[in-house]
Amino acid sequence: MSHTDSVLTRAEQDFESHVTSWLDWLRIPSISANPAHNADCQTAAAFAARELAAMGFTVEIVPTPGQPVVLASHFGAGEAAPHLLYYGHYDVQPADPLELWDADPFAPQIVEGPHGPRVVARGAVDDKGQVATWLAAFRAWFDTTGGLPARITVLLEGEEEIGSPNLEPFIVAHRDRLAGSEIAVISDTNQWDIDTPALTASVRGMAYVEVRLKGASRDLHSGMYGGSALNAINALTRALGQLHDDQGRVRIPGFYDGVEDISEAQKAAWQSLGFSEHDFLGEIGLSVPVGERDRSALERLWVRPTADINGIWGGYQGPGSKTVIAAEAGAKISFRLVPGQSPAHIVAGFKQFMAAHVPADAQLSFIEHANAPGLAIDTANRFVGAARAALQAEFNRTPALIGCGGSIPVVEGFRRVLGIDSLMMGFGLADDKPHSPNEKFEIACFRHGLRSHVRFLGEVAGL
Amino acid sequence: MSHTDSVLTRAEQDFESHVTSWLDWLRIPSISANPAHNADCQTAAAFAARELAAMGFTVEIVPTPGQPVVLASHFGAGEAAPHLLYYGHYDVQPADPLELWDADPFAPQIVEGPHGPRVVARGAVDDKGQVATWLAAFRAWFDTTGGLPARITVLLEGEEEIGSPNLEPFIVAHRDRLAGSEIAVISDTNQWDIDTPALTASVRGMAYVEVRLKGASRDLHSGMYGGSALNAINALTRALGQLHDDQGRVRIPGFYDGVEDISEAQKAAWQSLGFSEHDFLGEIGLSVPVGERDRSALERLWVRPTADINGIWGGYQGPGSKTVIAAEAGAKISFRLVPGQSPAHIVAGFKQFMAAHVPADAQLSFIEHANAPGLAIDTANRFVGAARAALQAEFNRTPALIGCGGSIPVVEGFRRVLGIDSLMMGFGLADDKPHSPNEKFEIACFRHGLRSHVRFLGEVAGL
Repeated sequence: MSHTDSVLTRAEQDFESHVTSWLDWLRIPSISANPAHNADCQTAAAFAARELAAMGFTVEIVPTPGQPVVLASHFGAGEAAPHLLYYGHYDVQPADPLELWDADPFAPQIVEGPHGPRVVARGAVDDKGQVATWLAAFRAWFDTTGGLPARITVLLEGEEEIGSPNLEPFIVAHRDRLAGSEIAVISDTNQWDIDTPALTASVRGMAYVEVRLKGASRDLHSGMYGGSALNAINALTRALGQLHDDQGRVRIPGFYDGVEDISEAQKAAWQSLGFSEHDFLGEIGLSVPVGERDRSALERLWVRPTADINGIWGGYQGPGSKTVIAAEAGAKISFRLVPGQSPAHIVAGFKQFMAAHVPADAQLSFIEHANAPGLAIDTANRFVGAARAALQAEFNRTPALIGCGGSIPVVEGFRRVLGIDSLMMGFGLADDKPHSPNEKFEIACFRHGLRSHVRFLGEVAGL
Repeated sequence: MSHTDSVLTRAEQDFESHVTSWLDWLRIPSISANPAHNADCQTAAAFAARELAAMGFTVEIVPTPGQPVVLASHFGAGEAAPHLLYYGHYDVQPADPLELWDADPFAPQIVEGPHGPRVVARGAVDDKGQVATWLAAFRAWFDTTGGLPARITVLLEGEEEIGSPNLEPFIVAHRDRLAGSEIAVISDTNQWDIDTPALTASVRGMAYVEVRLKGASRDLHSGMYGGSALNAINALTRALGQLHDDQGRVRIPGFYDGVEDISEAQKAAWQSLGFSEHDFLGEIGLSVPVGERDRSALERLWVRPTADINGIWGGYQGPGSKTVIAAEAGAKISFRLVPGQSPAHIVAGFKQFMAAHVPADAQLSFIEHANAPGLAIDTANRFVGAARAALQAEFNRTPALIGCGGSIPVVEGFRRVLGIDSLMMGFGLADDKPHSPNEKFEIACFRHGLRSHVRFLGEVAGL
């Protein structure tokens, strides 16, 4: 029996206790958004720290201006062993509206579903459940072999659900401590489906810009001024209304500079996933896709950039009517970016576009809220190879190499500050409802996750 | 000495007491928008009723579901005399923000200005001051001749500042009582400038429509759905952004149906007024006119229809950023209409326009808030002729026949229900600030108003 097989056997023997640990962690309402739960966040951090310490990790709970970071390392594998940085978060989303939950969100329930038993609780999958898969894998290796097969650093933050305001400063400040790790391992993404594992090989970046358009020095009466005075809302909608052409392409000059087409092989691989955009949209009451006409759904969702107006306001929004010509109007626009696009270039292009499409008197001002490039992981990376092998062995299926339409800022931070790629190997399902009532994680997925992490460590260590 | 000259002499002799009456009326804070001032509204109505009774009017204070209407008639001039319906309102706008007033808004001050003394108070001009000009004219005729030279009905409402919700039902209910009047006389508009009188010969109408656009069945995450799912704000701005063409014309099909060009004579007359759009816009911080490129400023402001988005909303409007794809967005749009346009036709055209410019999945719904046609007064009407002669004699200047960019719903109501035109002969100035702190009315304008009304009655009666 190989090392890995022994560890898998041990993991199965102790499976119930791994689930128990996970459930105990879920009982701690570590809601980072609510200061009333600060003590719970500390308790949740301490819980993980205790688990890590029990496996021989050197553990520190490092205070930040917000919630503490659990920083732990286990270098027993020796200088020659590969060095992995596991990242996750112990904080969870608020649970409200509470009345939509079938049970107390912090009293985890095991409920039977179409894929067998599932755990229902806030944080079941995001991210405590996913973190618990690799903590359990460490435990199985430790209990079987008395050590870990790789050098491992763990970084667990407690503010992911509020935008990780203190994470990047933390990484910068602890750069030396984190240096030398060769890849970040993150379980916060999904499988393709219940039977098919997935690695997320690209994430879209984002430029988020707020624009304000100011016309007259005060609000005006449309009877007195209509037909002569600039209307800020008319001008703003006229400009923003031209963001896309008839083919769904974004009309900002230079918007597609640097965007590369995916390979034919990639196209074929995605084609074979059998994604139904009809079903995807049908679930939310839609039937006709928007976006670039000449691209497949998965391209549009994963590797093509977008422009979405996320908010707009101006003038009178109350009941009834008011014949005001608003002096000012504003909008928030986000651009999902893909590898090759420069966020600064996109923002500059947007400003230029707006200036070119508003009347002479319109005064524009901009606030930049976020700015991160899209990223593609080098799939030739040996850790990606190890993960593919582990997933193939565990699921007996070729893992899908998928894209992520959203942004995962920590991935960009790790690359920029530490110079390392991230391996995004997650075990969630599309219907897990991570930020909603009755969040759940399939126990089948938890098991696959645990076992895949066991196998991955074996692969990485060449065992 | 003619009758009119005697009456003018008497008016001058009693001028101080006319001003005193006006100021006493201003002391009553008859704010219709605030139920705490209901008793004040009744007091203000009773004040006017008393003045009218003292001149031999038969007066009724008629309750309505809101503020009472003062309805009075004086038919002493006999069956053969012309019958005039004087309309005005005794309610005023709220006075806040109080801190921006130089004195108590309901303690009228006489303050020296560039045109001599002026009265500063809430309601100074709108509409108590203007109504006081014709009440004083009646009084001067009555005190001089013991009667009035025409049959006169007075309708003073107390809800003009809150949109006259009970006026039309009142007119309909009292149609028989009001029947036979040949013209409505309204003083609630402006002179052209301090030296030049004006009659308002046209008012724009209005169609006010609210549109809601619904996309997905719920708000979506732009990372997960961006590039595939319909964004309600994108779709709404795209449609509304096409409301105008590059020449400033409204692109709704049939929008200009029935709109007639003004005559060359009218163009020349307006040209001679020397209106400076540069100054008009400069005062509100603008320099470049919007609207139809090929039309003069006064045409655009008075007799050309417009489309203004008066409010827009959707998605996230708070601080910072949120990457939401909104399920719904909405906007309020008003169309200022001119004679010849059918409001129903415009609303239907707008709905058609929206339907043609949104994606297949977008569900549109509409709320119609207001709907009144534009109106032009027949300037060949003999009462208009009498007013022109009176103003010419009083100011020694040709009165300007001007348009009003706003809507005066009562004018449309009188035409529709009673079949009569309105004579809009007002004495305000552009800087009177009727709805703002330090509202004022020039005593010079009040005097011209009083004397012009005296002259007008003389002209009408052929005296």
